[in-house]
Amino acid sequence: KTPIKLLVLPGDGVGPEIMQEASRVLAWLEKNRDVTFDLTYDLVGGASLAEYGVPIRDEVIEKAWASDAVLFGSVGDPKWAHVGFDKRPEIAILKLRQELGLFANLRPAKVFDALVDASTLRPEVVRGLDIMIVRETVGGIYFGEPRGIETLADGTRRGINTEVYTTGEIERVARVAFDLARKRSNRVCSVEKCNVMESGLLWKEVVTDVHDRAFKDVELSHMLADNCAMQLVRNPRQFDVLVTGNLFGDLLSDLASMLTGSLGMLPSATLGAVQENGKRPALYEPIHGSAPDIAGQGVANPIAQILSLAMLLRYSLDMQAEADLIEQAVANVLASGLRTADIMSEGMARVGTAVMGEAIVREM
Amino acid sequence: KTPIKLLVLPGDGVGPEIMQEASRVLAWLEKNRDVTFDLTYDLVGGASLAEYGVPIRDEVIEKAWASDAVLFGSVGDPKWAHVGFDKRPEIAILKLRQELGLFANLRPAKVFDALVDASTLRPEVVRGLDIMIVRETVGGIYFGEPRGIETLADGTRRGINTEVYTTGEIERVARVAFDLARKRSNRVCSVEKCNVMESGLLWKEVVTDVHDRAFKDVELSHMLADNCAMQLVRNPRQFDVLVTGNLFGDLLSDLASMLTGSLGMLPSATLGAVQENGKRPALYEPIHGSAPDIAGQGVANPIAQILSLAMLLRYSLDMQAEADLIEQAVANVLASGLRTADIMSEGMARVGTAVMGEAIVREM
Ligand SMILES: CC(C)[C@H](C(=O)O)[C@@H](O)C(=O)O
Ligand SMILES: CC(C)[C@H](C(=O)O)[C@@H](O)C(=O)O
Repeated sequence: KTPIKLLVLPGDGVGPEIMQEASRVLAWLEKNRDVTFDLTYDLVGGASLAEYGVPIRDEVIEKAWASDAVLFGSVGDPKWAHVGFDKRPEIAILKLRQELGLFANLRPAKVFDALVDASTLRPEVVRGLDIMIVRETVGGIYFGEPRGIETLADGTRRGINTEVYTTGEIERVARVAFDLARKRSNRVCSVEKCNVMESGLLWKEVVTDVHDRAFKDVELSHMLADNCAMQLVRNPRQFDVLVTGNLFGDLLSDLASMLTGSLGMLPSATLGAVQENGKRPALYEPIHGSAPDIAGQGVANPIAQILSLAMLLRYSLDMQAEADLIEQAVANVLASGLRTADIMSEGMARVGTAVMGEAIVREM
Repeated sequence: KTPIKLLVLPGDGVGPEIMQEASRVLAWLEKNRDVTFDLTYDLVGGASLAEYGVPIRDEVIEKAWASDAVLFGSVGDPKWAHVGFDKRPEIAILKLRQELGLFANLRPAKVFDALVDASTLRPEVVRGLDIMIVRETVGGIYFGEPRGIETLADGTRRGINTEVYTTGEIERVARVAFDLARKRSNRVCSVEKCNVMESGLLWKEVVTDVHDRAFKDVELSHMLADNCAMQLVRNPRQFDVLVTGNLFGDLLSDLASMLTGSLGMLPSATLGAVQENGKRPALYEPIHGSAPDIAGQGVANPIAQILSLAMLLRYSLDMQAEADLIEQAVANVLASGLRTADIMSEGMARVGTAVMGEAIVREM
């Protein structure tokens, strides 16, 4: 079989150590399944700044285009804050999203049965929670022009950013959300702020239009972003798939993740458009940050990284059985009582990054 | 004594019924304290649309300028959604903020001891919670130009909104936050998204600068908005005063309110700049919406409206003792077991809007 080309970008902070555990799973798959991986490693974020003085090199973008998928660790070490706005570690992920056209960020917020008590919410409010947030990631206020800080004649300065959404950008991410809903509970809630923003007004109109034209079988509702922030706390299980813009998606998906009480457990996928050659660029990363405070100590939770690999198998390689296998192995290891520090609770066995990774592979 | 001029704007939905209960408190104050009120009532939101075809008349803005403070109910009845973006009921509140320069929205998120169990969060996470969110309300993406929906030559449409913050706008709201912190736990956390937005970069810089120049005794920290959404769920009691822009403030303050489990209980104040005549325009309103689904049934919770009046006494009239008295009366009535439907729990006595209002006045 032709080997599957993966670009592996561990990043900074805990990135490299958790990526190590995902590699174990890759090795297991090569040994036990009819698949081989052609792995290319490279530096991004703080690691790239240290070596090359930039958060990401153009060469890395080219390697990403040449791969079947990108497995990403994490970036954002604040020790690089001084290098300036256009060289911050985060540029690595923003540039990958933009250059590869990775417009649909899929972020599951799922409560693991074994970890219901890790949530700050009452167990009866979050048990069984399983939301999928689809966040637009190459448009909106993250990238709109004009932007910057300008100085007026009188010395006043103005910080400016522009939210822009086109009908096409809204339509394609809405389609991803509706498609996902069909494989889940068949409900999509579209989130904007159409009562104060025209970009939200257009968002709502286009999502409705796509629904009426092509997804009439899916239940569609609309919610204002402020109300959504509240509803996620009041009764998060009312949601199945949420679809929203870049900025609202940033806040709401982090909020939804925290509801689960297990940030270190949650993966994400970011998908681009299917290309003429049939390939679809895609990047998989944990939703948590690079946690520089615990980096290098071997205590970080590798589960989000391992589950990101499971999403890669599911969405880029159509290896559903193997994705299921990994997810089941994670659930079993948790049920057996193993815990990294971030999810530790009384009566459980506290283990480090490597022991957790090994246990999951053994369980497979 | 010269009567205090109040403009009373009940709005639509439950607005009029809960305002009725605030009026009871005003009447009590006139009878039992050395104060008289000169009350002017007018229509806004859905009520104004029904009568005049517009969400607010210029005349109402003039009356607001002529008053010592505005007591506002709620607007937003969705039955007016069809009238179009520039005539929606919400315009009433947006225009009042903008025309009166009401730039600092103070939103306390406080957990009442008697209502700890109304929160979806675990009691040990929220007991004693007392946050004050200071949200900028006349700038940012709500009002920035250019804005609108444009059609390109190829038929594509683009929705556009612009976030703009000037040094002056940031400085004045930061000062309000630092001043408030001094009367509380002396800590301010400033929230933006400076890792992707230049307007956030400027925000952070100006807040830091104001701090270093004039408020060095107050503890200042900075947090990204997505992280803040998470931290509010993970450990809300870490915060004292939060200061943020219009859009982040909209989501984060609603989120913080919901943590308390008693949305129907929370008031807000929105303050403008002190004028040459020494007056400071100010508007007081419940944070909840107009809840058209329960309007007219006499079941809405009047406490947020009554506590909004308490904030009016505190911030516009410097009647601290009377504000304390109202707040204590509310706490006592709750402790006695009276509950409106929204905060009802087992073993408590369910009452309607009027009975709750009467009970609070009696307790005073
Ligand atoms: C690192 C940062 C630029 C990024 C974002 O804001 O999109 C992150 O918070 C995320 O959600 O992936
Ligand atoms: C009614 C609406 C325009 C308003 C806002 O978004 O500011 C409301 O949500 C609020 O928070 O006061």
